[in-house]
Amino acid sequence: MAEGLFNIVEMIKPLDEGAMAAARARQDILTKPQGSLGRLEALSIQLAGIQGKPIPQIRQKAIITMAGDHGVVAEGISAYPQEVTAQMVYNFLGGGAGINVIARQVGARIIVVDLGVASEMKPHPQLVSRKVAPGTRNMSLGPAMTGEQAIKAVETGIEIVTAEVAKGLDIVATGDMGIGNTTASSAICAVMTGRPVAEVSGRGTGIDDKQLAHKIEVIDRVLAMNHPDPKQPLDVLAKVGGFEIGGLVGVMLAAAAHRLPVVIDGFISGAAALIAVALSPGLKDFLIAAHVSVEAGHRLLLKHLGLKPLLDLDLRLGEGTGAALGIFLSETAAKVLAEMSTFAEAGVSKKSETGNR
Amino acid sequence: MAEGLFNIVEMIKPLDEGAMAAARARQDILTKPQGSLGRLEALSIQLAGIQGKPIPQIRQKAIITMAGDHGVVAEGISAYPQEVTAQMVYNFLGGGAGINVIARQVGARIIVVDLGVASEMKPHPQLVSRKVAPGTRNMSLGPAMTGEQAIKAVETGIEIVTAEVAKGLDIVATGDMGIGNTTASSAICAVMTGRPVAEVSGRGTGIDDKQLAHKIEVIDRVLAMNHPDPKQPLDVLAKVGGFEIGGLVGVMLAAAAHRLPVVIDGFISGAAALIAVALSPGLKDFLIAAHVSVEAGHRLLLKHLGLKPLLDLDLRLGEGTGAALGIFLSETAAKVLAEMSTFAEAGVSKKSETGNR
Repeated sequence: MAEGLFNIVEMIKPLDEGAMAAARARQDILTKPQGSLGRLEALSIQLAGIQGKPIPQIRQKAIITMAGDHGVVAEGISAYPQEVTAQMVYNFLGGGAGINVIARQVGARIIVVDLGVASEMKPHPQLVSRKVAPGTRNMSLGPAMTGEQAIKAVETGIEIVTAEVAKGLDIVATGDMGIGNTTASSAICAVMTGRPVAEVSGRGTGIDDKQLAHKIEVIDRVLAMNHPDPKQPLDVLAKVGGFEIGGLVGVMLAAAAHRLPVVIDGFISGAAALIAVALSPGLKDFLIAAHVSVEAGHRLLLKHLGLKPLLDLDLRLGEGTGAALGIFLSETAAKVLAEMSTFAEAGVSKKSETGNR
Repeated sequence: MAEGLFNIVEMIKPLDEGAMAAARARQDILTKPQGSLGRLEALSIQLAGIQGKPIPQIRQKAIITMAGDHGVVAEGISAYPQEVTAQMVYNFLGGGAGINVIARQVGARIIVVDLGVASEMKPHPQLVSRKVAPGTRNMSLGPAMTGEQAIKAVETGIEIVTAEVAKGLDIVATGDMGIGNTTASSAICAVMTGRPVAEVSGRGTGIDDKQLAHKIEVIDRVLAMNHPDPKQPLDVLAKVGGFEIGGLVGVMLAAAAHRLPVVIDGFISGAAALIAVALSPGLKDFLIAAHVSVEAGHRLLLKHLGLKPLLDLDLRLGEGTGAALGIFLSETAAKVLAEMSTFAEAGVSKKSETGNR
């Protein structure tokens, strides 16, 4: 049986300082000027602290892509029709989506989870069917989901990580699919950061200026209707979140509890991280921000979390595509630490002033 | 027989507009919001234009790492002793350097070339021995090399690419090793961009403030002694360059002539690119800037070339390590274009306002 939400939070411990010190010491004797691999060195030390190993390993990799629909699409906030959520889930299962291509390149498995797609999904051996409900309710008229549903979504994420850990897992990446989910994420972001809706709302899949103004107006109404309390993160998730966002909260918490690095994708994963870190502040140290997307609010959100993105490639696809690239860089960081020769092994002279010559 | 310097420049033709238009059109029917893969989409279109194929392929990858020594180290401008150049070449051949680790990860072969290492190198099956001279002369006392040596270095780079093309090659990355070569690169950068030496000089492998002030003073003396003329790029290379830098100029020119994308590494590759683009302005379109390093002047240099780096990870190792990461992202870009399903293939609805529903 998987851990529940409350004991998983208890399981999250600080990074392993001893492993980090050992990793740092090893970086400094590898055949390169100290610090010359920049953020890859820092990343390798973070990985050591997370995994609790002086030389961390990134071999078994999973991208967990969670799908859910959003009742608020009835307000006309997305450029795409709601059925695209289900269609894209089938595309993931068929191997033809962006995330499939990049996952194959980086050697990661993809776990596709239906947490709340509106339409009934045909069974598929690769589809993890854990529908909490067929889409959230229209949150401009009331809460997106009940408190029980929010907890169920989070605990489903926890269960899925627990099952993947049993198969063998060294790193987790988060991904999402859900027409309308930038609207929910902007609402979460506005509440959790205290910034105006207009500052944290963007064009999602590609709406124009007029549609963006309408989206902002809808989110303002959503917040006025629901009064989510930033001090109660599960209340925020229930009132203005989404099932896939709740699932990702659970993924992050469980990954940290199992001492796995979590590579977070774009704005939707970032919104889930805001909730997850509010539930467990120590979780932050387990997160690796893969990239900063063009979605308004993502940069601000990462800054609020104190995370510096590895990539800035103007991505805004979601699915876990940016996170998959972050898996690659995490693997690079770990491999450099594990596989490079030391000065002594390679017979290379050190810096002149160290007295080596 | 490989092409000479002057006819290789003639061979460089513009990007293939037809292939680029076809790649762009295909990106727009793949199952994602248009443009949502950001710079990866732009990169795929550039690759199409370079290779002259609507769907470019990145399968066979080579990192060409060129080594050379610099007589100017006699002025005390580096943190490391000169013998480190040869020691690191042996480390490359032994597989223990940073570039070896990342090349293995991205599936690229490494071609290690001795273009001018000061010490005599033991023969090794993987070492391409093409020493122009055992290190450049101390350019604070006169030109670093003769005009003939400069041309020989460039033509060696051309020959090496020609040989690799014969083995099968889809993309080239550039790398360097040479104690003292940030000094030569800063000199080239100052001449070619017209900026003050202090603005384009950095800490290289890790010198302190006092040593940096001394390095700047040395470079100022080098320029005052040699009067390199930015309108004569080969004159600049000869007077204040390095053998490995000349080799990289040849690599870039030959790769473009053979319609191969060239992923350039950090500051030293950038200095070579300044010379190469001055010899053939059309070459610029064949270059992919992998990253912006922490070396002062690199950002400015890339801006001068009109190149936007893919990564900003505070790297400053050289060897081709950043470029190897750029190979990975180039391969991602090509794979996305080649392997993603179209809306029609996957049965996914398009954007609402396109009239698809």
